[in-house]
Amino acid sequence: MTDTTNTPITVLGLGLMGQALARAFLKAGHPTTVWNRTAAKADSLVAEGARLAPSVGDALEAGGVTIVCLTDYPAVRELLGDARLEGTTLVNLTSGDSAQARETAAWAEKQGARYLDGAIMAIPSSIGTPDSVILLSGPRLDPALDALGTVSYLGEDHGLASLYDVAGLTMMWSVLNAWLQGTAMLRTAGVDAATYATFAQQIAVGVAGWLPGYAEQVDKGSFPAEVSALETDARAMAHMVEESEALGVNAELPKLIKAMADRAIAAGHGGEQYPVLIREFERSEG
Amino acid sequence: MTDTTNTPITVLGLGLMGQALARAFLKAGHPTTVWNRTAAKADSLVAEGARLAPSVGDALEAGGVTIVCLTDYPAVRELLGDARLEGTTLVNLTSGDSAQARETAAWAEKQGARYLDGAIMAIPSSIGTPDSVILLSGPRLDPALDALGTVSYLGEDHGLASLYDVAGLTMMWSVLNAWLQGTAMLRTAGVDAATYATFAQQIAVGVAGWLPGYAEQVDKGSFPAEVSALETDARAMAHMVEESEALGVNAELPKLIKAMADRAIAAGHGGEQYPVLIREFERSEG
Repeated sequence: MTDTTNTPITVLGLGLMGQALARAFLKAGHPTTVWNRTAAKADSLVAEGARLAPSVGDALEAGGVTIVCLTDYPAVRELLGDARLEGTTLVNLTSGDSAQARETAAWAEKQGARYLDGAIMAIPSSIGTPDSVILLSGPRLDPALDALGTVSYLGEDHGLASLYDVAGLTMMWSVLNAWLQGTAMLRTAGVDAATYATFAQQIAVGVAGWLPGYAEQVDKGSFPAEVSALETDARAMAHMVEESEALGVNAELPKLIKAMADRAIAAGHGGEQYPVLIREFERSEG
Repeated sequence: MTDTTNTPITVLGLGLMGQALARAFLKAGHPTTVWNRTAAKADSLVAEGARLAPSVGDALEAGGVTIVCLTDYPAVRELLGDARLEGTTLVNLTSGDSAQARETAAWAEKQGARYLDGAIMAIPSSIGTPDSVILLSGPRLDPALDALGTVSYLGEDHGLASLYDVAGLTMMWSVLNAWLQGTAMLRTAGVDAATYATFAQQIAVGVAGWLPGYAEQVDKGSFPAEVSALETDARAMAHMVEESEALGVNAELPKLIKAMADRAIAAGHGGEQYPVLIREFERSEG
């Protein structure tokens, strides 16, 4: 591996996340230049060895790689709209959607910049640790961002980082909600949350292990009921809804699970296996 | 460990699951008696060494432990209603809810039986392997059921097996649905299901690892925003909903995630951490 800690880095935007990013680069030994509209936010970083650029243009010139982390995409365009981007490498870690990422990529490349779009799956305090996952899409980059945590390169399409980010968040909140639903049910029987959490964890990990196999069915578009047919699943789903209602806990999540399966059965897929529901998930409900 | 393969076992009900249960006991060396309303369903088991009992009463007398696996709880009460249960040990693995389990336990114990209620988290073909999880609740039982797979004893309350079962199923379908939602989003960008499945698996396993820690907050009833505040999460949830809508995929799951969080924020919990949503999951929506 080549030593990439010499790559000069610029960080534009010093909110909580921007400051955490700049600090991780400093700690890893990168010459680090920072800029923020309110210069005072750079004070502690400057005390730690960062250079405060007097202007955005100066900051862009200093960075072998320039990281942008602002409130939203319109703020990025406003900040960079008048700057000279010819020859720069921009990594935009601002939160946004895949359409904004692709539009901004097209604009930045037209200005002569090399542009990557990224998403940060981490909180500021974990930046610089392996727990911090940085998703990147666009042209391949040297491992200059490794100082930030676990960097995952997803592909050329600039929209991929945003898409993986929201997909991953959907998984995160779904696991948490399913756990809360089960916790609510078991607390009616006096089972504490810690006791149920261990069981819930085992189920989540076990089912996560099925995903690569189920993905083969989706990719083939063929869903033979090797394990269980959807109409068998639907009977257990009815139990799940009825039990939630009988216990007086929230039943919206169980009802949505059953409604999606019922629609696939109504569409003639009752004898097929669960991943056939991709057809329902790919269709807007309207 | 004592040798429990000598325990005589009776299996009442020889549907697909009942047959699989009887076969696992036979393979493990248990003297196995079977009974079914339609006796012909016992033919292959008899060929493998099972004894076909001429009546339910005879079958109950033969079994040190009697397993019941029928269509539903009313069928169990109908079958056992006139039988002598004094001194028997019944393990009811029929699918049902926690109220049915507790009612049937009270009735069976009044008849003099030792009663356990169970749930099978497995398909018939995996019975007898470690992948087959058997949940048991009621009085503690000798490890006579170990032949069936991984037996998990949950506690004295006869309703626990049903509750853990539906809670576990909620987790199972939630992980699958979140994966399908993400797969639908990423397929719009030409990413195949197999590629995304690996990422989804990592997220699910990672988040599952948070549950024991989050459970401590639920058990304490205190939800300080150590990682992230709910109102910060809600902004990312808005991205998740908007992206799903913009891509034209189903947005019901993202919308439900956001709606639950919005309600907790409206109830004044925006500065607290995600597990505070237990308050919403414990409340029926009506």
